[in-house]
Amino acid sequence: MRTVDLIQRKRDGEELAPEEIQSLVDGYTRAEIPDYQMSAFLMAVCWQGMTDREVGALTASMLNSGERVDLSMVPGAKVDKHSTGGVGDKTSLIAAPLAAAAGAVVPMISGRSLGFTGGTLDKLEAIPGLRTNLTIDEFRAQLAAHKLAFIGQTEQVAPADGKLYSLRDATGTVESIALIASSIMSKKLAVGLDAIVLDVKVGAGAFMKKQVDARRLAQQMVAIGRRNDRRMQALITDMNQPLGFAVGNALEIMEVSQTLQNAGPVDLTRLSLELASRMIFLAKVAPTLDEAREMAQGRLLDGSGYRKFKEVIAAQGGNPKVMDQFELLPNATGMREIYSPRAGYVSAIDAALIGQASVLIGAGRDTKEDSIDPAVGVILEVKSGQKVDAGGVLCRIYYTGEERVDEAAEQVEDAFRISAAQPEERELILEVVG
Amino acid sequence: MRTVDLIQRKRDGEELAPEEIQSLVDGYTRAEIPDYQMSAFLMAVCWQGMTDREVGALTASMLNSGERVDLSMVPGAKVDKHSTGGVGDKTSLIAAPLAAAAGAVVPMISGRSLGFTGGTLDKLEAIPGLRTNLTIDEFRAQLAAHKLAFIGQTEQVAPADGKLYSLRDATGTVESIALIASSIMSKKLAVGLDAIVLDVKVGAGAFMKKQVDARRLAQQMVAIGRRNDRRMQALITDMNQPLGFAVGNALEIMEVSQTLQNAGPVDLTRLSLELASRMIFLAKVAPTLDEAREMAQGRLLDGSGYRKFKEVIAAQGGNPKVMDQFELLPNATGMREIYSPRAGYVSAIDAALIGQASVLIGAGRDTKEDSIDPAVGVILEVKSGQKVDAGGVLCRIYYTGEERVDEAAEQVEDAFRISAAQPEERELILEVVG
Repeated sequence: MRTVDLIQRKRDGEELAPEEIQSLVDGYTRAEIPDYQMSAFLMAVCWQGMTDREVGALTASMLNSGERVDLSMVPGAKVDKHSTGGVGDKTSLIAAPLAAAAGAVVPMISGRSLGFTGGTLDKLEAIPGLRTNLTIDEFRAQLAAHKLAFIGQTEQVAPADGKLYSLRDATGTVESIALIASSIMSKKLAVGLDAIVLDVKVGAGAFMKKQVDARRLAQQMVAIGRRNDRRMQALITDMNQPLGFAVGNALEIMEVSQTLQNAGPVDLTRLSLELASRMIFLAKVAPTLDEAREMAQGRLLDGSGYRKFKEVIAAQGGNPKVMDQFELLPNATGMREIYSPRAGYVSAIDAALIGQASVLIGAGRDTKEDSIDPAVGVILEVKSGQKVDAGGVLCRIYYTGEERVDEAAEQVEDAFRISAAQPEERELILEVVG
Repeated sequence: MRTVDLIQRKRDGEELAPEEIQSLVDGYTRAEIPDYQMSAFLMAVCWQGMTDREVGALTASMLNSGERVDLSMVPGAKVDKHSTGGVGDKTSLIAAPLAAAAGAVVPMISGRSLGFTGGTLDKLEAIPGLRTNLTIDEFRAQLAAHKLAFIGQTEQVAPADGKLYSLRDATGTVESIALIASSIMSKKLAVGLDAIVLDVKVGAGAFMKKQVDARRLAQQMVAIGRRNDRRMQALITDMNQPLGFAVGNALEIMEVSQTLQNAGPVDLTRLSLELASRMIFLAKVAPTLDEAREMAQGRLLDGSGYRKFKEVIAAQGGNPKVMDQFELLPNATGMREIYSPRAGYVSAIDAALIGQASVLIGAGRDTKEDSIDPAVGVILEVKSGQKVDAGGVLCRIYYTGEERVDEAAEQVEDAFRISAAQPEERELILEVVG
């Protein structure tokens, strides 16, 4: 089996056998297959796609390249929630405490921000003292004690995925449904979970620009999970405008606090509740989805989700008082308002541009090596569909250094579209898969 | 301009600017762009193709990576003939002497066999004593004295193409019309030619399997040549069955001798004459194509083409007597006949299988490092359309070692299709481009 023959067969649209996929991944992990052959193969996959059987084999090969996170000693049904990445997406920090407060065990293994999309770990680390680098033993103990713990991906899990992801990043082969699905699922399957709720984002601020692609991605991930005995559901949700009002790490923690106290933005509250409901349902804490929804709603209204989050912050070494006293969070030193050039309706807020502007002033990273300024970001004053006056405030940019604020302000201005006619309302939750 | 952005834009079907293509080729030649990015780019080109402007820029960048072969001191119009590669294709060794005998100057820069296709240099080197590694000065002097000289590609010409070709070979990115066109033309344009006649092969024994692809390749090469002030014509010719009867280096030299004495196979004679005519016409030795055809025919019938070839063999250190005394050529030690399993008509002879069988017994090479046995090969006894009896001889395999003869014989047997009905005659020259 010559590597070049496998590349050619994929290039020509043929399906490869599971053992052929495995030999590619194993050979690459052992550095017997060079980067230049793997990158050609990856581009051929971007071109020709992969069948469910191929994606399954790729996922299994990456999964088997590393260690598993055994959670069998933690009692209760374990459920994780994963988002494909968006701008202002802090739902994990709301849905996970609600689900845990309802009785599900939620081992949250989260990522960092890259490009214009934010990362749950960076948001959490805006809280002074909070550690996300728990050992697996600490992670298990905290799950047993509090039903919820947040950690990052360890390098021992699916190392083949880590190596492949770096190569994809440098070779324009990130945006493949098959490669995204197998990358996500190889890491999720390494953890002893019973159920997984996926939030597949679609729109300007997401990897997937078209709903048909988001659906295919959701279907592939749900299929992989089910073949591995995970209970799976995926929501396909709109990511054209940022979720909620806040974009930026400490700013988003403040919004999480407000939302867990039932005083958050409508869209963020609604999506977080729906995700929490499905986590509760798939964990079999509630027998029907409707009952799970009542439960999630109840944990929001009675404040137990809010208390659960503070309890977990404290368990991970953070200061839970930040949830009430925002001045304890890192604070920006400068602020600039962006005004509407004319009166009308906000018909679009390009999430990618808002995300990129936030990266410019330090809220995110362009490359893995960049450091993050937890204090900075953007807070929207309006959302799509709202009316604005000429000169009305569209949003505020919070910064700590002046250098790139002008550039960021331009991008933020470009993000808003103001039209004379009121735009049609957009659905937030577009589809349920599985 | 980040390399990954250029890869992504090509992946998404965008046209790159000439200076972007150039920065890719220059960066790669200077090893600033790694193999793994270039191979992803090449696969994206296989997927999305290239516009004429892009192919022109790629060709120019590769051309400018190396030296030129200046022939301005050699008087007369210079014309080269290039084939995209086939099985039993020895037309260069017939058309070039005919054109030179008619008065054109023919600087033949030829290639070696690779895979199932033969190479003119390997055929010539079957002649004892003949050198193809002339210096450029020797090449010029021989052209001035004899109007015809054969050499191989020097490494100083289009080195970027050499580096890219090795990468393509290892990454399944050889079969791209844009990449084939620019690879061929970057080497041809490095030589001080006035005109180029192309023979684009199509069929089982060629890179291009479909006529529409062969046409596109011919059109792209003709366009590149014309933009660089070369007079250009391309023939698209059938390469489903081998050309002539002989496949194998010394065996083909014998067939060249017969054909130059007007005793060769009909198809080989016809195509060689047509190529010679177009060389003579494009070199402006004859004012019309019809007069060029009369001239080529005349040089065949009066033996001056045959004498020209012997003169050139001697000039390059070879023994011209081999053209009359075939026992002076390397001779095989064993022969096996392949018989028809039943009576009927030969409806197909798969050129690729015949070529591969020849490689198996040593007539060609699988990798650049393999050595060649000049004596071995296959001689067909019948061609497509002919009638055979059950048990009649289809072809003879000539070998020097027993090891892989059984395997080769099987492939050769598989190559022949015998049917009850007489097949329709196939056109040899399918199209003229330019």
